[in-house]
Amino acid sequence: MKELPIHIQLHPENSKTLYEQIYEYIREEIKAGSLLQNEKLPSARFLADYLQVSRTTVDMAYDQLVSEGYLEARPRKGYFVSTYEELNAIDRIPQGDRYLPSGQEEIPRRGEDGSHQQAVQTMLSYDFSPNAIDMRYFPYATWKKITKNILVDANSKMFSLGEPQGDPELRTTICRYLHGSRGVNCEPEQIIIGAGNDYLLLLLEKILGRHIRVAMENPTYTKAYKIFRSCAYPVCFIPMDESGLRVDCLRQTDAQVAYVMPSHQYPTGVSMPIGRRMELLKWAAEAEDRYLIEDDYDSEFRYKGKPLPSLQASDHNGRVVYIGTFSKAIAPAIRISYMVLPYPLLERYRRECGFYSSTVSRIDQTILNEFIQDGYFERYLNKMRKRYREKHDLILNELKAFERAFDISGSNAGLHVLLTDRHGRAEEELAEAAAKEGVKVYRMQDFRMGEHTDDAAMLILGYGALTDEEIREGIARLKKVWL
Amino acid sequence: MKELPIHIQLHPENSKTLYEQIYEYIREEIKAGSLLQNEKLPSARFLADYLQVSRTTVDMAYDQLVSEGYLEARPRKGYFVSTYEELNAIDRIPQGDRYLPSGQEEIPRRGEDGSHQQAVQTMLSYDFSPNAIDMRYFPYATWKKITKNILVDANSKMFSLGEPQGDPELRTTICRYLHGSRGVNCEPEQIIIGAGNDYLLLLLEKILGRHIRVAMENPTYTKAYKIFRSCAYPVCFIPMDESGLRVDCLRQTDAQVAYVMPSHQYPTGVSMPIGRRMELLKWAAEAEDRYLIEDDYDSEFRYKGKPLPSLQASDHNGRVVYIGTFSKAIAPAIRISYMVLPYPLLERYRRECGFYSSTVSRIDQTILNEFIQDGYFERYLNKMRKRYREKHDLILNELKAFERAFDISGSNAGLHVLLTDRHGRAEEELAEAAAKEGVKVYRMQDFRMGEHTDDAAMLILGYGALTDEEIREGIARLKKVWL
Repeated sequence: MKELPIHIQLHPENSKTLYEQIYEYIREEIKAGSLLQNEKLPSARFLADYLQVSRTTVDMAYDQLVSEGYLEARPRKGYFVSTYEELNAIDRIPQGDRYLPSGQEEIPRRGEDGSHQQAVQTMLSYDFSPNAIDMRYFPYATWKKITKNILVDANSKMFSLGEPQGDPELRTTICRYLHGSRGVNCEPEQIIIGAGNDYLLLLLEKILGRHIRVAMENPTYTKAYKIFRSCAYPVCFIPMDESGLRVDCLRQTDAQVAYVMPSHQYPTGVSMPIGRRMELLKWAAEAEDRYLIEDDYDSEFRYKGKPLPSLQASDHNGRVVYIGTFSKAIAPAIRISYMVLPYPLLERYRRECGFYSSTVSRIDQTILNEFIQDGYFERYLNKMRKRYREKHDLILNELKAFERAFDISGSNAGLHVLLTDRHGRAEEELAEAAAKEGVKVYRMQDFRMGEHTDDAAMLILGYGALTDEEIREGIARLKKVWL
Repeated sequence: MKELPIHIQLHPENSKTLYEQIYEYIREEIKAGSLLQNEKLPSARFLADYLQVSRTTVDMAYDQLVSEGYLEARPRKGYFVSTYEELNAIDRIPQGDRYLPSGQEEIPRRGEDGSHQQAVQTMLSYDFSPNAIDMRYFPYATWKKITKNILVDANSKMFSLGEPQGDPELRTTICRYLHGSRGVNCEPEQIIIGAGNDYLLLLLEKILGRHIRVAMENPTYTKAYKIFRSCAYPVCFIPMDESGLRVDCLRQTDAQVAYVMPSHQYPTGVSMPIGRRMELLKWAAEAEDRYLIEDDYDSEFRYKGKPLPSLQASDHNGRVVYIGTFSKAIAPAIRISYMVLPYPLLERYRRECGFYSSTVSRIDQTILNEFIQDGYFERYLNKMRKRYREKHDLILNELKAFERAFDISGSNAGLHVLLTDRHGRAEEELAEAAAKEGVKVYRMQDFRMGEHTDDAAMLILGYGALTDEEIREGIARLKKVWL
């Protein structure tokens, strides 16, 4: 047997239990890289003997590490350190924090109002929404505990109005987190905390000013489009290729601002390689007052390859506005988003918009800050990364039979896959056939702008919120009507 | 002795204590009007004998009723039902819910940035801010208890994203509250809940559209002015007389929207009489797409006379947008405001802006809803009304000596008084002399728009956040330098 990689010094007199000491030791070794990816750990029985503790103690530590995604239990083989893509450490791995388009709560269904949408949804038993997330694993008890502790310590200061940009403590935490996980280079003073992405985009309008010509990828996140339209911004749509937004086409427009999702474009899933990013940043730097809005809504749920850092990380000219949210990474009810402003825009914000009061209560900011600082956020992300990977593998497996009729794409990351029909059928036809079986799928045409009559039918199947059983049954029903 | 007005049936087997039963009985009798204003209650000793309970039990009930403002203890005379103006019942008395300009958190000090302002404030020991409120009596324990209970019952639904307009339960509660306290006529579907007034004004811009010409009172709430300017709305200022905004002057403009504070204009304290209100509503109804924005930020802290219901209550043409906030009535950290839209604007909101996600978490909405529904809000308001009235009486008493040099006005309501100099001194001169004594007062010129070189110096002295001792000492210092 190879040398034991575990050198724990247990302290029975410590206030922490032995199980916690083992758990924390191994977690820190993994995070520090001392335990390598795919490295096999000693069996629970062996480690228990070696450390002179009960088998249950080691089992509990291993179970927690598995449930948080640090370890993998391989049947009949033992415990292994999870592979790189599955791990997320706030201060180490350049990965993202969110797994859904920031702020995206509704499927844009143009021409339909919300009530109709709701009525349809309740009729359909298997909703493959690309926006829904799985809240079954949310640490409700932890959230309650933090809230309770904060209110115990609360004083009138906590109930007072905070700074317009948000509490300095939370901004510092977000700053460190973004640097560690996404390579974002910023100071806490550049961060503005707001109640959701929609609000931040409204505030950004006040900073950028009126009559700004905006370029967007096509297809795109249609809610952002609606907001720009609501701001009366003229919007042009730029075609994409396999590297994302075509900068050569962007150059043919008179756009001043481009709204992009370079890490994992929504809904296509395209990841923009570094060369295209450099082109884009070059475009932005070439004229006065050109900016890129980077909606970095996901990237930690990657199943192949390593995610690139944010576009902001490569920007040396102060041209990127970086936007993200916790509404989806933690819970939709948590209305906390953030925006990193480059200095020229920060100055304009302070001069012209600094009087807008914060839209997030100090109590909520304090709870979130502790949730991140105490490591709960990281652990929750690791757990969800593991769970979503399992669902991802399951749906791809269930979709194997579909490969003769559809191209399956977009499966490297995120919480949805794309199916492109090879038989010339229409998206409506496929979606309606699915609906008759009680299955709701989403049509690419709802994300496309302009006329695209010659495009092959493309369906979006999100799996984030579904249980394994729902995924199996939903796909089985699609098989009946689509194959 | 006159007939005993108390006919309580005590139930010792009830889960409520005897003291609670007595307290609740008397409170309900007062709210129902069965116990009349200024009516004397039996002495605690007499009632204890009569009910066959201990004297302490009755004392506790009376004490709580006094602390919540239902009763007054008059030295050597006994307990009396408080007078009308001091009471607020959600379903009975047409009084307001807030006691400061909604959303007003900063004193507008044009040409100074926030950091400088803070530096000045920390140097000055006695800050007569008209915006600051007294948080000493906030029921922190109750707020914690409600939060804890809600999180115990919390499920994933609570952590999900709510409706864009806000939770139906809270909207229903606000609707009932506004009808009872301010005569507002609306349905819950007309209410939009948002994270602060600033946000609601931004949303209102999206509903009203661009290039709206806005009229404001002069002087006015300068933060609202900044927001309109930030929306690039042309703003014109309308002079006021003793009845408020001069509608004859408004008619000489091409304004489409007028932003008004008819119940208690900020900062002048003018209350618009019914005749002027009718003129204003007539103006609004005369042309397509004219609207009045009613910022009904206060009115429950009246010390003389009975407040009129809201302007919205008199509007039969759907021309009033009614805005209010809980940020000040409860605590500045509570970022919850509301806007009542008339139906034509509600339709436009739904058609064009219904996709904007709610900016308030469902958890926070649920806490607030319980705080109001369980009667805590009403009790807290009653308590503060009593406390602020005491401070009001104190400051007017301390200012008696100032009457030979200043006209004292605006003392019928609100949390500040106005001092108009009769000796031709400048506001700067008076404010600077005060600052040298460590006293911060506020200058009317910071609220006035345009040139007003011939106006007499007018200083604003707010007393909401100061203790009795601070009020006495602050006024004593002003006496030294101003008289």
